[in-house]
Amino acid sequence: MCELLGMECNVPTDITFSFHGLASRGGKCGPHADGWGLALYEGKLARVFLEPVAAAHSALATFVREHPIKTLLAIAHVRRKTRGGIGLVNTHPFTRELWGRHFVFAHNGTVKRATKLGRFKPIGDTDSESAFCALLAALEHDFKDYPKSAADLANAVAHHAGRIGKGGTFNMLLGDGSQLFARCSTKLHYILRHSPFKKATLADEDVSIDFAAVTTPKDRVAIVATMPLTRDETWTTGEPNTMWVFKAGRLARTLPS
Amino acid sequence: MCELLGMECNVPTDITFSFHGLASRGGKCGPHADGWGLALYEGKLARVFLEPVAAAHSALATFVREHPIKTLLAIAHVRRKTRGGIGLVNTHPFTRELWGRHFVFAHNGTVKRATKLGRFKPIGDTDSESAFCALLAALEHDFKDYPKSAADLANAVAHHAGRIGKGGTFNMLLGDGSQLFARCSTKLHYILRHSPFKKATLADEDVSIDFAAVTTPKDRVAIVATMPLTRDETWTTGEPNTMWVFKAGRLARTLPS
Repeated sequence: MCELLGMECNVPTDITFSFHGLASRGGKCGPHADGWGLALYEGKLARVFLEPVAAAHSALATFVREHPIKTLLAIAHVRRKTRGGIGLVNTHPFTRELWGRHFVFAHNGTVKRATKLGRFKPIGDTDSESAFCALLAALEHDFKDYPKSAADLANAVAHHAGRIGKGGTFNMLLGDGSQLFARCSTKLHYILRHSPFKKATLADEDVSIDFAAVTTPKDRVAIVATMPLTRDETWTTGEPNTMWVFKAGRLARTLPS
Repeated sequence: MCELLGMECNVPTDITFSFHGLASRGGKCGPHADGWGLALYEGKLARVFLEPVAAAHSALATFVREHPIKTLLAIAHVRRKTRGGIGLVNTHPFTRELWGRHFVFAHNGTVKRATKLGRFKPIGDTDSESAFCALLAALEHDFKDYPKSAADLANAVAHHAGRIGKGGTFNMLLGDGSQLFARCSTKLHYILRHSPFKKATLADEDVSIDFAAVTTPKDRVAIVATMPLTRDETWTTGEPNTMWVFKAGRLARTLPS
């Protein structure tokens, strides 16, 4: 199993604090020591940092924390392998170009290996990457270009994610460069941070931040994580077979999936 | 214009010394200060570091040099923009998945914008990414899967690169995870390093390395660069409209292109 982290905002924000909390679970306070990845969008392109090692002991993960890159949309993952060996090819998040933009995907759980992958071929051998390829193939089948209607795209993602995840465990995060789709199969939480901002403390470490000191009143930040990352904030627990869509730091939609 | 760097080896090797030389030309000893990128393959997947800033002044580029990652195949680029603004989406090298493997591409020069891009859509707005998309579309059209014949693939890459580059300047590097294609349109050089290894000094800085101290007798390393990166080695100058294919640290083929 693995842990997921997503961030979606209305102003460029760094993910340092939350990523610190996630990285601790990658081999220090948690058993997810088989790899880590962090995708940070700049417009329609994501830059992705990947390593098939424990995030808690990674010099690159430390570098990324110490040199924060601000972004509107980020997806991170720490891995404890179930299907597929340890290696860069099996390290989440996965990335593909569709409709002239990067889609980024990370998965928690185990699903039956997808078969209808269209033109998207897995590079590694995880069930997760197969599921991602199947999801993109289905979206490409449904829409010739990036859909003008956000509702149409959200409905399609929810439908296909539900179909692909059926019979398995398919908690997943999907980014398209302008919004974050977060499907809860068994375990997923979110929090919306906005004015008035408060102090927060990591759940697993004595590390705090006063968000009021690093934000402006108009900032809005949505954070999604497998388990709450802080101990002194109120996180919303996901209902199984539900998908959230976050846009500009708000919960834009909640759909059955 | 830009500068290209490629490395292809028979044993995992770090690209630190050559990348140091290239990065110097990214805003210090050269004018290529509009971005840099470095793709390092691990099997069929490339991890890519990208920044739309000068490599010579980049903390991430410094980190990558100080924490070398060994690889059999790497492609790097420092950018001085001609077509397309400064930004992550326009930063080389570009990456796409085809046939379940990453293809990585970097370009020096300017070409007429390609039109037949197949299913590969540019994310940014450079002529280079369009050319890459057109090249992959042509390869996918010619072969259903990754060709079993290395000669067939090399001939196809040489043919389509020549066609796409016609009338423009199309020096390019293309990696497929197991070999490096290097097309010379106007300016490209290579060197093969093998036993007995010697000392080498960067062309632009007083930085030396004794390769004999960091290699074994069976190691073979091919380096391709826009301009020779060292001052005390003999580099081979490319003939215009020629493509080299490097495999296991050897020059496997030279083709008209």
